[in-house]
Amino acid sequence: MQWNELSKENCSLARSLAVVGDRWTLLILRDAFLRVRRFEEFENSLGIARRVLSERLALLVEEDILKKVPYQENPPRYEYRLTEKGLDLYPVIISLVHWGDRHYAGRRGAPMLHTHKTCGHDFQSVLTCSECGESLNARDVTVRPGPGAKKRA
Amino acid sequence: MQWNELSKENCSLARSLAVVGDRWTLLILRDAFLRVRRFEEFENSLGIARRVLSERLALLVEEDILKKVPYQENPPRYEYRLTEKGLDLYPVIISLVHWGDRHYAGRRGAPMLHTHKTCGHDFQSVLTCSECGESLNARDVTVRPGPGAKKRA
Repeated sequence: MQWNELSKENCSLARSLAVVGDRWTLLILRDAFLRVRRFEEFENSLGIARRVLSERLALLVEEDILKKVPYQENPPRYEYRLTEKGLDLYPVIISLVHWGDRHYAGRRGAPMLHTHKTCGHDFQSVLTCSECGESLNARDVTVRPGPGAKKRA
Repeated sequence: MQWNELSKENCSLARSLAVVGDRWTLLILRDAFLRVRRFEEFENSLGIARRVLSERLALLVEEDILKKVPYQENPPRYEYRLTEKGLDLYPVIISLVHWGDRHYAGRRGAPMLHTHKTCGHDFQSVLTCSECGESLNARDVTVRPGPGAKKRA
Protein backbone atom coordinates (compact mmCIF):
# COMPACT_ATOMS: atom_id res chain seq x y z
CA MET A 1 0.00 0.00 0.00
CA GLN A 2 1.57 3.20 -1.13
CA TRP A 3 -0.15 5.21 1.64
CA ASN A 4 2.01 3.57 4.22
CA GLU A 5 5.09 4.93 2.46
CA LEU A 6 3.95 8.48 3.19
CA SER A 7 5.18 9.36 6.65
CA LYS A 8 2.83 10.83 9.19
CA GLU A 9 4.80 14.06 9.20
CA ASN A 10 4.15 14.29 5.50
CA CYS A 11 0.37 14.02 5.84
CA SER A 12 -1.81 17.12 5.77
CA LEU A 13 -4.29 15.55 8.17
CA ALA A 14 -1.55 14.82 10.71
CA ARG A 15 -0.27 18.40 10.33
CA SER A 16 -3.77 19.80 10.88
CA LEU A 17 -4.33 17.58 13.90
CA ALA A 18 -1.04 18.65 15.43
CA VAL A 19 -2.57 22.14 15.69
CA VAL A 20 -6.33 21.67 16.10
CA GLY A 21 -6.69 17.98 16.99
CA ASP A 22 -7.83 18.21 20.56
CA ARG A 23 -11.26 18.71 22.10
CA TRP A 24 -10.60 21.96 23.96
CA THR A 25 -9.12 23.62 20.91
CA LEU A 26 -12.06 22.60 18.74
CA LEU A 27 -14.54 23.79 21.37
CA ILE A 28 -12.68 27.14 21.60
CA LEU A 29 -12.95 27.41 17.82
CA ARG A 30 -16.66 26.55 17.94
CA ASP A 31 -17.14 29.43 20.38
CA ALA A 32 -15.04 31.76 18.21
CA PHE A 33 -17.34 30.98 15.26
CA LEU A 34 -20.27 31.82 17.58
CA ARG A 35 -18.61 35.23 18.13
CA VAL A 36 -17.25 34.55 21.60
CA ARG A 37 -14.16 36.79 21.80
CA ARG A 38 -13.00 37.54 25.33
CA PHE A 39 -11.03 35.40 27.74
CA GLU A 40 -13.75 35.44 30.41
CA GLU A 41 -16.44 34.63 27.86
CA PHE A 42 -14.52 31.53 26.72
CA GLU A 43 -13.92 30.59 30.35
CA ASN A 44 -17.60 30.88 31.26
CA SER A 45 -18.81 29.17 28.12
CA LEU A 46 -16.46 26.21 28.35
CA GLY A 47 -15.90 25.76 32.08
CA ILE A 48 -12.23 25.33 31.24
CA ALA A 49 -9.31 25.92 33.62
CA ARG A 50 -7.75 29.36 33.06
CA ARG A 51 -4.27 27.90 32.55
CA VAL A 52 -5.50 25.46 29.90
CA LEU A 53 -7.49 28.18 28.15
CA SER A 54 -4.45 30.48 28.19
CA GLU A 55 -2.25 27.82 26.65
CA ARG A 56 -4.73 26.92 23.94
CA LEU A 57 -5.41 30.56 23.02
CA ALA A 58 -1.66 31.28 22.89
CA LEU A 59 -1.13 28.34 20.51
CA LEU A 60 -4.01 29.48 18.30
CA VAL A 61 -2.53 32.99 18.17
CA GLU A 62 0.96 31.62 17.46
CA GLU A 63 -0.48 29.56 14.61
CA ASP A 64 -2.28 32.62 13.21
CA ILE A 65 -5.70 31.00 13.67
CA LEU A 66 -6.81 33.66 16.18
CA LYS A 67 -5.50 37.20 16.44
CA LYS A 68 -5.39 39.41 19.54
CA VAL A 69 -7.19 42.71 19.04
CA PRO A 70 -7.14 45.41 21.76
CA TYR A 71 -10.57 46.47 22.97
CA GLN A 72 -9.55 48.55 26.00
CA GLU A 73 -6.48 50.68 26.75
CA ASN A 74 -6.23 51.16 30.48
CA PRO A 75 -5.59 48.50 31.60
CA PRO A 76 -4.87 46.94 28.21
CA ARG A 77 -7.34 44.20 27.30
CA TYR A 78 -7.50 42.02 24.22
CA GLU A 79 -10.07 39.95 22.49
CA TYR A 80 -9.52 36.99 20.21
CA ARG A 81 -10.81 36.98 16.67
CA LEU A 82 -10.58 34.44 13.91
CA THR A 83 -8.04 35.23 11.18
CA GLU A 84 -8.61 34.23 7.57
CA LYS A 85 -6.74 31.00 8.29
CA GLY A 86 -9.05 30.44 11.26
CA LEU A 87 -12.15 31.18 9.21
CA ASP A 88 -10.87 28.55 6.75
CA LEU A 89 -11.62 25.97 9.47
CA TYR A 90 -15.35 26.56 9.12
CA PRO A 91 -15.91 23.46 6.94
CA VAL A 92 -14.29 21.29 9.63
CA ILE A 93 -16.46 22.73 12.42
CA ILE A 94 -19.76 22.76 10.53
CA SER A 95 -19.15 19.21 9.21
CA LEU A 96 -18.61 17.99 12.78
CA VAL A 97 -21.75 19.83 13.90
CA HIS A 98 -23.90 18.41 11.13
CA TRP A 99 -22.52 14.90 11.70
CA GLY A 100 -23.50 15.27 15.37
CA ASP A 101 -26.93 16.58 14.35
CA ARG A 102 -27.47 13.58 12.09
CA HIS A 103 -26.27 10.86 14.44
CA TYR A 104 -26.60 12.12 18.01
CA ALA A 105 -29.36 14.71 18.07
CA GLY A 106 -32.05 12.50 19.64
CA ARG A 107 -35.76 12.70 19.09
CA ARG A 108 -36.21 16.43 19.47
CA GLY A 109 -33.83 17.33 16.68
CA ALA A 110 -30.83 19.60 16.27
CA PRO A 111 -29.87 21.84 19.22
CA MET A 112 -29.01 24.64 16.79
CA LEU A 113 -30.22 25.65 13.38
CA HIS A 114 -27.92 27.30 10.86
CA THR A 115 -29.30 29.85 8.43
CA HIS A 116 -27.56 30.85 5.21
CA LYS A 117 -27.93 34.63 5.09
CA THR A 118 -27.37 34.69 1.33
CA CYS A 119 -30.53 32.68 0.57
CA GLY A 120 -32.36 32.97 3.88
CA HIS A 121 -32.84 29.21 4.42
CA ASP A 122 -31.83 26.82 7.17
CA PHE A 123 -29.25 24.56 5.55
CA GLN A 124 -27.25 21.41 5.79
CA SER A 125 -23.68 21.65 4.55
CA VAL A 126 -22.93 19.72 1.36
CA LEU A 127 -19.40 18.93 0.31
CA THR A 128 -18.88 19.41 -3.41
CA CYS A 129 -16.12 19.03 -5.98
CA SER A 130 -14.38 22.28 -6.97
CA GLU A 131 -14.14 21.04 -10.58
CA CYS A 132 -17.58 19.68 -11.47
CA GLY A 133 -19.73 21.01 -8.61
CA GLU A 134 -21.28 17.61 -7.84
CA SER A 135 -21.55 16.43 -4.24
CA LEU A 136 -18.60 14.41 -3.00
CA ASN A 137 -18.47 11.25 -1.01
CA ALA A 138 -15.62 8.98 -0.02
CA ARG A 139 -16.52 6.27 -2.51
CA ASP A 140 -16.11 8.67 -5.46
CA VAL A 141 -12.55 9.65 -4.61
CA THR A 142 -9.13 8.18 -5.28
CA VAL A 143 -5.85 9.48 -3.88
CA ARG A 144 -2.27 9.40 -5.08
CA PRO A 145 1.02 10.94 -3.93
CA GLY A 146 1.23 14.66 -4.75
CA PRO A 147 4.18 17.03 -5.39
CA GLY A 148 4.90 17.27 -1.66
CA ALA A 149 5.02 13.49 -1.14
CA LYS A 150 8.26 12.03 0.18
CA LYS A 151 10.29 10.09 -2.31
CA ARG A 152 10.66 6.35 -1.61
CA ALA A 153 13.82 5.56 0.31
CA MET B 1 -25.37 35.74 24.44
CA GLN B 2 -27.91 33.03 23.85
CA TRP B 3 -25.19 30.52 22.84
CA ASN B 4 -24.00 30.35 26.39
CA GLU B 5 -27.44 29.17 27.47
CA LEU B 6 -27.02 26.00 25.41
CA SER B 7 -25.17 23.52 27.53
CA LYS B 8 -22.16 21.67 26.18
CA GLU B 9 -24.02 18.38 26.42
CA ASN B 10 -26.62 19.86 24.17
CA CYS B 11 -24.16 20.81 21.43
CA SER B 12 -23.73 18.64 18.37
CA LEU B 13 -20.07 19.58 18.09
CA ALA B 14 -19.41 18.51 21.68
CA ARG B 15 -21.27 15.25 21.02
CA SER B 16 -19.21 14.59 17.89
CA LEU B 17 -15.96 15.39 19.69
CA ALA B 18 -16.85 13.04 22.53
CA VAL B 19 -16.60 10.24 19.94
CA VAL B 20 -14.06 11.34 17.33
CA GLY B 21 -12.30 14.27 19.00
CA ASP B 22 -8.85 12.83 19.55
CA ARG B 23 -5.84 12.56 17.29
CA TRP B 24 -5.49 8.79 17.24
CA THR B 25 -9.14 8.27 16.40
CA LEU B 26 -8.99 10.77 13.55
CA LEU B 27 -5.78 9.19 12.20
CA ILE B 28 -7.42 5.74 12.36
CA LEU B 29 -10.35 7.16 10.40
CA ARG B 30 -7.96 8.73 7.85
CA ASP B 31 -6.43 5.29 7.32
CA ALA B 32 -9.87 3.68 7.07
CA PHE B 33 -10.74 6.14 4.28
CA LEU B 34 -7.46 5.12 2.59
CA ARG B 35 -8.76 1.51 2.72
CA VAL B 36 -6.60 0.32 5.60
CA ARG B 37 -8.68 -2.45 7.19
CA ARG B 38 -6.70 -4.87 9.31
CA PHE B 39 -5.38 -4.47 12.84
CA GLU B 40 -1.76 -5.01 11.83
CA GLU B 41 -2.08 -2.57 8.93
CA PHE B 42 -3.34 0.16 11.27
CA GLU B 43 -0.58 -0.71 13.73
CA ASN B 44 2.14 -0.46 11.07
CA SER B 45 0.74 2.64 9.46
CA LEU B 46 0.29 4.58 12.69
CA GLY B 47 3.04 3.27 14.95
CA ILE B 48 0.41 3.12 17.67
CA ALA B 49 0.53 0.92 20.80
CA ARG B 50 -1.61 -2.21 20.33
CA ARG B 51 -3.59 -1.55 23.48
CA VAL B 52 -4.45 1.99 22.39
CA LEU B 53 -5.36 0.82 18.89
CA SER B 54 -7.57 -1.92 20.35
CA GLU B 55 -9.39 0.55 22.56
CA ARG B 56 -9.96 3.08 19.78
CA LEU B 57 -11.16 0.43 17.32
CA ALA B 58 -13.52 -1.03 19.93
CA LEU B 59 -15.02 2.43 20.57
CA LEU B 60 -15.44 3.05 16.83
CA VAL B 61 -17.21 -0.32 16.46
CA GLU B 62 -19.38 0.35 19.52
CA GLU B 63 -20.36 3.71 18.00
CA ASP B 64 -21.20 2.04 14.66
CA ILE B 65 -18.54 4.05 12.82
CA LEU B 66 -16.54 0.94 11.91
CA LYS B 67 -17.89 -2.58 11.56
CA LYS B 68 -16.01 -5.86 12.04
CA VAL B 69 -16.17 -8.11 9.00
CA PRO B 70 -14.67 -11.65 9.07
CA TYR B 71 -12.04 -12.25 6.42
CA GLN B 72 -10.68 -15.59 7.66
CA GLU B 73 -12.29 -18.50 9.50
CA ASN B 74 -9.59 -20.55 11.12
CA PRO B 75 -8.40 -18.85 13.25
CA PRO B 76 -11.16 -16.22 13.02
CA ARG B 77 -9.86 -12.86 11.83
CA TYR B 78 -11.73 -9.62 11.31
CA GLU B 79 -11.17 -6.46 9.39
CA TYR B 80 -12.61 -3.04 10.10
CA ARG B 81 -14.70 -1.25 7.52
CA LEU B 82 -16.44 2.10 7.60
CA THR B 83 -20.20 1.96 8.10
CA GLU B 84 -22.53 4.49 6.50
CA LYS B 85 -22.24 6.58 9.67
CA GLY B 86 -18.45 6.35 9.36
CA LEU B 87 -18.53 7.31 5.68
CA ASP B 88 -20.56 10.35 6.74
CA LEU B 89 -17.39 11.63 8.42
CA TYR B 90 -15.72 12.13 5.06
CA PRO B 91 -16.40 15.90 4.98
CA VAL B 92 -14.67 16.28 8.35
CA ILE B 93 -11.58 14.36 7.23
CA ILE B 94 -11.23 15.90 3.77
CA SER B 95 -11.80 19.41 5.19
CA LEU B 96 -8.97 18.86 7.69
CA VAL B 97 -6.75 17.51 4.89
CA HIS B 98 -7.42 20.42 2.58
CA TRP B 99 -6.90 22.93 5.41
CA GLY B 100 -3.53 21.28 6.08
CA ASP B 101 -2.73 21.38 2.36
CA ARG B 102 -3.54 25.07 2.22
CA HIS B 103 -1.69 26.18 5.33
CA TYR B 104 1.03 23.64 6.09
CA ALA B 105 2.03 21.99 2.82
CA GLY B 106 5.29 23.89 2.32
CA ARG B 107 6.89 24.82 -0.97
CA ARG B 108 6.58 21.50 -2.75
CA GLY B 109 2.80 21.34 -2.44
CA ALA B 110 0.28 18.81 -1.19
CA PRO B 111 1.55 15.40 -0.09
CA MET B 112 -1.51 13.76 -1.65
CA LEU B 113 -3.78 14.61 -4.53
CA HIS B 114 -7.45 13.69 -4.49
CA THR B 115 -9.21 12.81 -7.72
CA HIS B 116 -12.97 12.87 -8.16
CA LYS B 117 -13.73 9.71 -10.12
CA THR B 118 -17.05 11.10 -11.32
CA CYS B 119 -15.43 13.93 -13.31
CA GLY B 120 -11.82 12.71 -13.47
CA HIS B 121 -10.27 15.88 -12.01
CA ASP B 122 -8.09 16.60 -9.00
CA PHE B 123 -10.29 18.63 -6.71
CA GLN B 124 -10.50 20.83 -3.68
CA SER B 125 -13.53 20.31 -1.49
CA VAL B 126 -16.04 23.15 -1.45
CA LEU B 127 -18.66 23.45 1.24
CA THR B 128 -22.01 24.49 -0.16
CA CYS B 129 -25.51 25.27 1.07
CA SER B 130 -28.04 22.43 0.65
CA GLU B 131 -30.74 24.99 -0.20
CA CYS B 132 -29.20 27.38 -2.76
CA GLY B 133 -26.05 25.50 -3.79
CA GLU B 134 -23.77 28.50 -3.23
CA SER B 135 -20.47 28.07 -1.38
CA LEU B 136 -20.67 28.62 2.36
CA ASN B 137 -18.42 30.52 4.66
CA ALA B 138 -18.71 31.43 8.31
CA ARG B 139 -19.55 35.08 7.65
CA ASP B 140 -22.68 34.12 5.68
CA VAL B 141 -24.22 32.06 8.47
CA THR B 142 -26.31 32.84 11.52
CA VAL B 143 -27.34 30.35 14.18
CA ARG B 144 -30.27 30.09 16.53
CA PRO B 145 -31.58 27.49 18.99
CA GLY B 146 -33.22 24.52 17.26
CA PRO B 147 -35.93 22.04 18.32
CA GLY B 148 -33.42 20.09 20.42
CA ALA B 149 -32.18 23.14 22.33
CA LYS B 150 -32.61 23.12 26.08
CA LYS B 151 -35.24 25.39 27.45
CA ARG B 152 -34.05 28.24 29.63
CA ALA B 153 -34.07 27.33 33.30
